[in-house]
Amino acid sequence: MSQAWKDYQENNKQRFLDELLEMLRIPSISARSEHKTDMVKCAEMVKQRMLEAGADKVEIFATPGHPIVYGEKIIDPAKPTVLVYGHYDVQPVEPLELWTNPPFEPTIVDGKIFARGSADDKGQFYMHVKALETMVQTNTLCTNIKFCIEGEEEVGSNNLADFVKNNKALLKADVILISDTAMISMENPSIDIGVRGLSYIEVEVTGPNRDLHSGVYGGAVANPITILAKMIASLHDENNHITIPGFYDDVVNATPEERKKMAAAPFDEKEYKDDLGVKELWGEKGFTTNERTGIRPTIELNGIWGGYISEGSKTVLPSKAFAKISARLVPNQHSEKMTEVLINHLKKIAPPFVTVDAKAHHGGEPYMTPIDSKAYKAAASALKDTFGKDPIPVRGGGSIPICALFEKELGVKIVFMGFGLDSDNLHSPNEKYNLENYYKGIETIPHFHKHFANL
Amino acid sequence: MSQAWKDYQENNKQRFLDELLEMLRIPSISARSEHKTDMVKCAEMVKQRMLEAGADKVEIFATPGHPIVYGEKIIDPAKPTVLVYGHYDVQPVEPLELWTNPPFEPTIVDGKIFARGSADDKGQFYMHVKALETMVQTNTLCTNIKFCIEGEEEVGSNNLADFVKNNKALLKADVILISDTAMISMENPSIDIGVRGLSYIEVEVTGPNRDLHSGVYGGAVANPITILAKMIASLHDENNHITIPGFYDDVVNATPEERKKMAAAPFDEKEYKDDLGVKELWGEKGFTTNERTGIRPTIELNGIWGGYISEGSKTVLPSKAFAKISARLVPNQHSEKMTEVLINHLKKIAPPFVTVDAKAHHGGEPYMTPIDSKAYKAAASALKDTFGKDPIPVRGGGSIPICALFEKELGVKIVFMGFGLDSDNLHSPNEKYNLENYYKGIETIPHFHKHFANL
Repeated sequence: MSQAWKDYQENNKQRFLDELLEMLRIPSISARSEHKTDMVKCAEMVKQRMLEAGADKVEIFATPGHPIVYGEKIIDPAKPTVLVYGHYDVQPVEPLELWTNPPFEPTIVDGKIFARGSADDKGQFYMHVKALETMVQTNTLCTNIKFCIEGEEEVGSNNLADFVKNNKALLKADVILISDTAMISMENPSIDIGVRGLSYIEVEVTGPNRDLHSGVYGGAVANPITILAKMIASLHDENNHITIPGFYDDVVNATPEERKKMAAAPFDEKEYKDDLGVKELWGEKGFTTNERTGIRPTIELNGIWGGYISEGSKTVLPSKAFAKISARLVPNQHSEKMTEVLINHLKKIAPPFVTVDAKAHHGGEPYMTPIDSKAYKAAASALKDTFGKDPIPVRGGGSIPICALFEKELGVKIVFMGFGLDSDNLHSPNEKYNLENYYKGIETIPHFHKHFANL
Repeated sequence: MSQAWKDYQENNKQRFLDELLEMLRIPSISARSEHKTDMVKCAEMVKQRMLEAGADKVEIFATPGHPIVYGEKIIDPAKPTVLVYGHYDVQPVEPLELWTNPPFEPTIVDGKIFARGSADDKGQFYMHVKALETMVQTNTLCTNIKFCIEGEEEVGSNNLADFVKNNKALLKADVILISDTAMISMENPSIDIGVRGLSYIEVEVTGPNRDLHSGVYGGAVANPITILAKMIASLHDENNHITIPGFYDDVVNATPEERKKMAAAPFDEKEYKDDLGVKELWGEKGFTTNERTGIRPTIELNGIWGGYISEGSKTVLPSKAFAKISARLVPNQHSEKMTEVLINHLKKIAPPFVTVDAKAHHGGEPYMTPIDSKAYKAAASALKDTFGKDPIPVRGGGSIPICALFEKELGVKIVFMGFGLDSDNLHSPNEKYNLENYYKGIETIPHFHKHFANL
């Protein structure tokens, strides 16, 4: 079976790549309203490709936002069903000037596909489409496969929640399989056993009712940038511990055993620093780097702006300053609650010289998957088949907003079988996905289905 | 004489306005390289208008930046000479969406000319051109008049300095007269006896070498926005006193007498707050609002940016964050020295997780003019002639970078006879200049020449 898959994939290698590149050329940026038609175009392409791969029913579901593509190949209702979740939307591309090649003109350099969405998540969900094709064409499909590929993952999956709630029978499965995370390296395959949750807000600080001349008024009227900076500065103490009352209340601390296992995972601090070009790492005192990104909640500034930000100088005391701030959450923090905590705190610490308004962007719950489940074991065995060694269970730092809801509504666990690398520049300029990882993913996925059907 | 001036001005009122409006239609933004040809066009118009007003020699001097327009009307070398300084360049117009009317389509509403440059400084220097015309046409000119109208005041007057140094004979005068400041109100005419100096820098904080996924790396790598916010927050202590070592070293404290006089000047705090739409004023403890803007140095954030600043959300941990920061200086602080103090301080307080780069934009020295000079007395008498009351001497908060150099190179004092109002929205959206102030300025200026020639 394994050899038939390999042969088929080897013979269709170039086409598997060309199809992905074609999809990467569509600028499906969900956050930007001007890309609405690109979103529809991309959904149509996903549908077409699923049909070509052998799905026997594919449907595009409209939502108040971007469409969801559902597809299925049912071979026998008595057999186990795998629901593959992924997303065809991508992050915005700014700052554009830092891209070596245009983000929607995929370019292959040194065995890497450079394009927005190459790793997150077009390149990863598409491996499942090509794995389906492989199994169908080699007559080896041993599970039922369902696909739920959405267009709003990067903006909080707001409409997917309703879709899942309203289509429980359609989506019924024995496991949810997601390739939207990374592994440690090709030499150290790993499986994410958790993703962090997210609360994302935007804060607006208003000082005077109009932009002022910084000479005429400077010194006598609060500058909203200065005030916003003081508010931001106050969010972390000298140990980089978050100061917001209640922020850590619901955090379930990792057990000493888990922390011990994490400490044993391969991590080269020098390599990590060199890759990022920083002289020193930063983070909450008392925790290692992997713990800081895995088991601890964080607050990050995702954007800040106010006043004059163009060429040259302008002596203005601005009326307003803004920031986009997000928190990554861990079990058992809850996104809605933490969003409220964040917003209330910022309003509370606003000094009387300014007014502070804050609104919620998207959020998502943290999620953990057990390592003793049948699905996890199938994934681990699949990786062992193709990588030759047991994968390491790790906690991922990112978020996949829909996980908790999937589990709640469908009553099954999720397995994260991600083939990306931390160095893939997700959400950054020059996002890339290694060809080797793309093909290795396509190679590994059929093994998962085989093990899951047989366990 | 006074009546002849009034009659002439009344008869030419509409044309005086139309000519100003035509000049306001030229987007002469010195900070933006794309407006280079607009700058040349505006200089040409200034030249043409001086000639029409009766100047007998007008010349445009090219500089490495924007051109300087020099004009003169010499009636008798034995008579006193007044050098009028002004600038035809204007500030950038962002944020454009806050303008009620387009900034370069002047619109008159309720007796106010709304346009970028209406008060700062086209509307003000042009009063002197129309005053010259008035005196020439009524055969009442009793002084020699020289004009030096530059195009780089809003970007630090870098090339004017060389021009002044190289053309001392050409610019030789007995007083320098500048209308580029404000008065308290039409009911309370005032004369600025000082302007603050300026140091303007831009700081760049670099964390990781690329934008990162805020989930994958958040919590483990310093966020340059957070670090920049902490750096900014540290610049003022809890009394809003500036914390930079050496910042106040050269400040000459105002005398108790001057502070007493300042306290006696009309100031309505409620009206001031209501106009700005703020509930509470902010500033250095131990000083009044007028002192904070007049006799004290300040640090203002003029702009800040970093990360994702567009619609929606992006979960990025940015590589860089930037701020534009300026200090207003008072006697005897020196711009170059303070720029160095600022830059060195920011580099010094940078934590080891980031690298900080900072560069100087333009600067300017603080300037004070004595109230017992012949020129000051001539200005005070002129205002009394047309406003019916003695003007109040006040310290202005803004900066006119070239003042100190003018005095040093030409050996004469400056008099500020400004007709703007603090509420003119200088450097802000909806900049305006009241028609009443424009005409009152044209009316008052000939009185200055009369008094200056006769004192």
